[in-house]
Amino acid sequence: MSTSIAEPGLLGSTPRTRVRRLPEKAAAEREALHQVLDAGLVAHVAVVDDSGPGGTPQPYVLPVAYARFGEHVLFHGSTGSRLFRTLAAGAPTCLTVTLLDGLVLARSAFESSMNYRGAMVLGTCAVLGGGEKEAALERISEHLMPGRWAEIRPPSRKELAATVVLELSLAEASVKISDGGPTDEDEDLELPVWAGVVPLAETWCDAVPSADLRAGLDVPDYVRSWRR
Amino acid sequence: MSTSIAEPGLLGSTPRTRVRRLPEKAAAEREALHQVLDAGLVAHVAVVDDSGPGGTPQPYVLPVAYARFGEHVLFHGSTGSRLFRTLAAGAPTCLTVTLLDGLVLARSAFESSMNYRGAMVLGTCAVLGGGEKEAALERISEHLMPGRWAEIRPPSRKELAATVVLELSLAEASVKISDGGPTDEDEDLELPVWAGVVPLAETWCDAVPSADLRAGLDVPDYVRSWRR
Repeated sequence: MSTSIAEPGLLGSTPRTRVRRLPEKAAAEREALHQVLDAGLVAHVAVVDDSGPGGTPQPYVLPVAYARFGEHVLFHGSTGSRLFRTLAAGAPTCLTVTLLDGLVLARSAFESSMNYRGAMVLGTCAVLGGGEKEAALERISEHLMPGRWAEIRPPSRKELAATVVLELSLAEASVKISDGGPTDEDEDLELPVWAGVVPLAETWCDAVPSADLRAGLDVPDYVRSWRR
Repeated sequence: MSTSIAEPGLLGSTPRTRVRRLPEKAAAEREALHQVLDAGLVAHVAVVDDSGPGGTPQPYVLPVAYARFGEHVLFHGSTGSRLFRTLAAGAPTCLTVTLLDGLVLARSAFESSMNYRGAMVLGTCAVLGGGEKEAALERISEHLMPGRWAEIRPPSRKELAATVVLELSLAEASVKISDGGPTDEDEDLELPVWAGVVPLAETWCDAVPSADLRAGLDVPDYVRSWRR
């Protein structure tokens, strides 16, 4: 019942990103990759250093705000962060975006699962500077808070200097989309157990003004128009 | 305006998990760690192998279903997954859970941010077997789908053999909670720009029955009672 598509070749798949399990769920189309990245708000990024037992590779997984721009993902962090400095120095990374769409309630434990959309990008980051850096910060802001950049104070020179902006190519990436209902074994279909999907939805709530808000300022129309 | 707490010592912090940036946001209390892990549905787990450029460490970040049980996190995967086999063999890992609670709209780009609850766990996994393995699968199921285990068909011997169940200790972990409104620079407070928080909520939608559902089965009460 899964409506997923498997064409890993379309995403310039390599032995590292070829989906080894459940290839029928690899909706490996660039369009799908873009859609998943454009729909997400938070990405999880890995940084590896040598702080594992006996100096072995130790991964850290950090949540970051990001935006897709063309065939790249942009994200930012603090120059004071050791992990961001490691990424900026060219450490191989993995950036994953997961959107959980619902729970799949099968009649057996084994077939019970989740519906989700997921993107995974492998590579090393380029550090952006100059005009590219500020443009990338605008893109990240507009991805999360469309319409906001035009009215907020842009970053000062000092604030820009405190920020690392990284760019990761989508050249090596995979996308997986799992949707539809449970796929129970034939012998389980007669069990007296309800089966189906419980969808999960994410919505913006009413905006809460800051306690120190100047009088006379109302929630902007562009904020009211946000939908998920 | 952040109401975060910073007491990393309470979580048995090590140089690896001490929060280096924004320590005022490190709500490092075990209780908070448990609450964040108990509130999440998906964790992001890192696996490192040597598939990076020139055999260097390459991380992969995978979304997994999980559950907290006492001072451990439990999660599972397929024995056919190379990445899960790597974890089962004792590779150092990092498991991160992030709950995005809203966007913080400050008057400057630099102070704009997200409200979130995040947990990060470092360590190596133990492989569970026998009765512990099936009990862990029940805990993961009950974390995601409370009430469900009692009526679904439990895993067969063959299904259990196809599943790796991993346990990760919470001994080395950190938790960060960022909430409250924007903290703008004094000189930005007079800008004619609305500021505040746009909360994000996650809700279960009406359950959708499977197309092959037996007649006469209604959505169970335990499903109707789920709340987020």
